[in-house]
Amino acid sequence: MNTKQRQRQVKPAEVRLDELVTAAQALFLDKGVDATTVGDIVERAGVAKGTFYHYFNAKTDLLPALRERFTHRFLERVSAAVEACGVDDWPGRLTAWFTSSLHAYQVDFQLHDLVYAGHHHDRDNPDLDAVVGQVEAILRDGGDAGAWPVSDWQRLATMAYWSMHGLADAAIARGGVDSDELGAFLSRRFLAMLRGVEN
Amino acid sequence: MNTKQRQRQVKPAEVRLDELVTAAQALFLDKGVDATTVGDIVERAGVAKGTFYHYFNAKTDLLPALRERFTHRFLERVSAAVEACGVDDWPGRLTAWFTSSLHAYQVDFQLHDLVYAGHHHDRDNPDLDAVVGQVEAILRDGGDAGAWPVSDWQRLATMAYWSMHGLADAAIARGGVDSDELGAFLSRRFLAMLRGVEN
Repeated sequence: MNTKQRQRQVKPAEVRLDELVTAAQALFLDKGVDATTVGDIVERAGVAKGTFYHYFNAKTDLLPALRERFTHRFLERVSAAVEACGVDDWPGRLTAWFTSSLHAYQVDFQLHDLVYAGHHHDRDNPDLDAVVGQVEAILRDGGDAGAWPVSDWQRLATMAYWSMHGLADAAIARGGVDSDELGAFLSRRFLAMLRGVEN
Repeated sequence: MNTKQRQRQVKPAEVRLDELVTAAQALFLDKGVDATTVGDIVERAGVAKGTFYHYFNAKTDLLPALRERFTHRFLERVSAAVEACGVDDWPGRLTAWFTSSLHAYQVDFQLHDLVYAGHHHDRDNPDLDAVVGQVEAILRDGGDAGAWPVSDWQRLATMAYWSMHGLADAAIARGGVDSDELGAFLSRRFLAMLRGVEN
């Protein structure tokens, strides 16, 4: 056993798995899934090919792990921004949700497009449910606390998510998202919706 | 020349083209693009294979024609519903936009999914611009007529479109869209947004 092999062996399994996922992410983003080989991935990760095949059957088996990583990072970033607001500052928490979602989407949109290519019409999508659930909790808890009067949290959360997503895509097409400005705009319009008269 | 061939020849070009597009749509929806052959399409359309190759190089060349047909039908249906409202009934026109968009999407969602598979992240999408432009015109003209005070029509139209689309997808995942009920809900919430105080 040479030194290189010994170094490989002492790494815990989750570290090697993480290195494979990180290597695949960089290669998929750089040259696309089609042009990336398993050989490229293990070389970049510095692990043996056998390690790859211990976890996966093919390179595309890494896509669910990348999807999970994207969603986890998105949820963590947004949660941190929301929790930085006062516990009773419901307009602030809603604004933080919009601003940090736009920012997280802008930062990772190439990864987003990679892992969700073709997933647009998976109408049963637990990742989407988790992200929508975050803003739904803010809307519901704010309503319970008396910050706004309406109900229908799930529908309003779906509207908030897709409004954010659609405006982020439009802004990216024009060159980039100003997440503070656009987040403040979205929050103002949603607060008007939540508090406005209906007719 | 036999009778069948003579019948083919007397049809105008646009009719034969339309028959090819109609045949391809039925076959693509029924068994998928991959399993459909050019032979299947010409047989169903009742045209010669040479006619197909006069217009197209491959079966996938029919997808842009199907996309155009989907968008054209969507715009026509929505336009008819909006124009059935009074010219000064801006809340009614907005409600008609939501209700008829939901209905048009529900009726044709399998075709929508077929022609827009993988098009989710074409951020530069003229079909999308045309559909969003329809609701943008209602919002802007209603604003000009004094029905609501806000500006930012393009952003609000993008929010209206994606709110409709996201709630339609969620409803389809649960079994179907009640376009009258959901359209009325969306219109009420958007009217509150358009007329509500901001803070």
